[in-house]
Amino acid sequence: MQTLHVELGERRYPIFIGSDLNPQDLLAPYIFGQQVMIVTNTTIQPLYLEHYVKAVEALGKKVATCVLPDGEKYKDIQHLNLIFDALLEASFNRDCTVLALGGGVIGDMAGFASACFQRGVYFIQVPTTLLSQVDSSVGGKTGINHPLGKNMIGAFQQPQVVMADMAQLKSLPDRELSAGLAEVIKYALLGDESFLLWLEANMDGLVARDPDLLAEAVYRSCAHKARIVANDEKEQGERALLNLGHTFGHAIESYLGYGVWLHGEAVATGMVMAADLSQRMGWISVADLERTKKIIQRAGLPIVCPEIPLQDFLGYMAHDKKVLNGQLRLVLLKQLGQAIITKEFDVELMQQAIIANQTI
Amino acid sequence: MQTLHVELGERRYPIFIGSDLNPQDLLAPYIFGQQVMIVTNTTIQPLYLEHYVKAVEALGKKVATCVLPDGEKYKDIQHLNLIFDALLEASFNRDCTVLALGGGVIGDMAGFASACFQRGVYFIQVPTTLLSQVDSSVGGKTGINHPLGKNMIGAFQQPQVVMADMAQLKSLPDRELSAGLAEVIKYALLGDESFLLWLEANMDGLVARDPDLLAEAVYRSCAHKARIVANDEKEQGERALLNLGHTFGHAIESYLGYGVWLHGEAVATGMVMAADLSQRMGWISVADLERTKKIIQRAGLPIVCPEIPLQDFLGYMAHDKKVLNGQLRLVLLKQLGQAIITKEFDVELMQQAIIANQTI
Repeated sequence: MQTLHVELGERRYPIFIGSDLNPQDLLAPYIFGQQVMIVTNTTIQPLYLEHYVKAVEALGKKVATCVLPDGEKYKDIQHLNLIFDALLEASFNRDCTVLALGGGVIGDMAGFASACFQRGVYFIQVPTTLLSQVDSSVGGKTGINHPLGKNMIGAFQQPQVVMADMAQLKSLPDRELSAGLAEVIKYALLGDESFLLWLEANMDGLVARDPDLLAEAVYRSCAHKARIVANDEKEQGERALLNLGHTFGHAIESYLGYGVWLHGEAVATGMVMAADLSQRMGWISVADLERTKKIIQRAGLPIVCPEIPLQDFLGYMAHDKKVLNGQLRLVLLKQLGQAIITKEFDVELMQQAIIANQTI
Repeated sequence: MQTLHVELGERRYPIFIGSDLNPQDLLAPYIFGQQVMIVTNTTIQPLYLEHYVKAVEALGKKVATCVLPDGEKYKDIQHLNLIFDALLEASFNRDCTVLALGGGVIGDMAGFASACFQRGVYFIQVPTTLLSQVDSSVGGKTGINHPLGKNMIGAFQQPQVVMADMAQLKSLPDRELSAGLAEVIKYALLGDESFLLWLEANMDGLVARDPDLLAEAVYRSCAHKARIVANDEKEQGERALLNLGHTFGHAIESYLGYGVWLHGEAVATGMVMAADLSQRMGWISVADLERTKKIIQRAGLPIVCPEIPLQDFLGYMAHDKKVLNGQLRLVLLKQLGQAIITKEFDVELMQQAIIANQTI
């Protein structure tokens, strides 16, 4: 097992990364009250819920559970309210802990609920997908979607501890494994060309679910993100780099309807669009763009999206949180392994990059 | 005009207290983006909304409005969502400001919405009731109710500025003026016997709405609360004293149904119960208890509540946020002008104090 610490002063917390981890031993020091609400979904429930309920009960805690339907389309205010219902029906207090057992949707919803319930209770994350292990479990961003935009309502809420168990990835569908690899590739593209080389050497093994390779990919991705987040917890600057591919990706997800494409799939094609625009801006070469597309494709991810009317695409981009004072900012690539956030881009070229990476 | 600063380090903010204040001049330095959402209710809308819309537009800002129905019973997740709808329909960004124009309910909802929208935008409060001027506009507590408990879902969100205009109290119904005086009396009872003497000397003038007396009462109450909040922003200790009367009061409000009794009315009777228990514990005298009842009664407030089955009353108290590790803590009076928070009280005497202050 490897341990990575996210350095946030008083709210410093560890991420445990390994296989067949023991929740009872690992979580014991991080549960402060007597009540634990485990939030999970209908897919995870039959696989892992009982194991965690028993582990936490063995610590002498009162455990209650809240099982939500599985999918991004349920990441809304109505389903968030079900967590509040469960907490209040169990008479849970300000010293309770909300434990998220599931992927990014469960982490976002349980985390946001823990931030709001009684104006803030304790939070623990057990991410069960590759995507949430490398991305949504690090950094404290939680929230829900709104019909007019993704992740528009939420809070910054840091967990007490994160436990990423590679053994849980065995049950992950191929499509979701690939979606997780999209975020892994993102870290390489935005800040670490040597990691990109490592991914190019090991992508076949990752897709074949070699547990050691997966653990290494999770560790390196989390280390990248943890360092960026520690520098910029509230997303005033550097942290915005983590949105590489996301402004384009959000438009794709929003247009298609939440849950039609996986978040990682939309980010994958979004990264292609960002790289394409970077090439049109003259920052990266055509060969770099092809290299970007290639590693994304080898991870089993889409590099083009369905045709979306340009006005719709731009409308959804304008709703993105990266808009500041009405000015759209994009994360682009100065070179492979070095992203920048900028409002200095050619709108005409951006439109070309969007259109060029759609099926006709 | 008097100005009071709430000292919270980086999030230090001023409260302007006076009559016929000029919003354009006073708010200008505290609006950072280009977009302002004014949240108000149907009662305030015809009285003051246009005035504020024009003042903010005169600053060159884009203004949108969200008008909610008036009343505590609408302080729920469905009506909170209407604010998110309005923000997204107006395409507002992360640099927008949410301005609460109304009483405590509007302040709580607009404040909570501003804390969650895009994971946090700017917030300004213009409290239009005495209650919200002395209480809910200071301290950063925001939130909504749940059918199983009051203020169970929320966030700590500090405003950029608070503007308390005594001229707006002219339109306040008598019952709401009294409800505001309940919180004013609370500050006297919990920490300042000289303020209690001042209230005993000036209560008739306050009830007659003498603007200078009201401004003085608001200033002294806010100063008390500001000092306590600055010491204990996240309610780890001293701040819990501000809940004098609230644990009993929440039970009354919850049982009767939100909005049947005003919050201040429930707190008034709750303070009588707290004082009654304090007397039964031998901490204050029978004369002190009578003095407490007298000042509450002179403010036009109820000192007894309708009959509530004891088990129901205790059940609602158990849902109160002051419960820590399953242990109920109460704010009681060691003497008039000196409150303490304690779990060391006689449950039997507490039940007597509840029953003694109900109509039979």
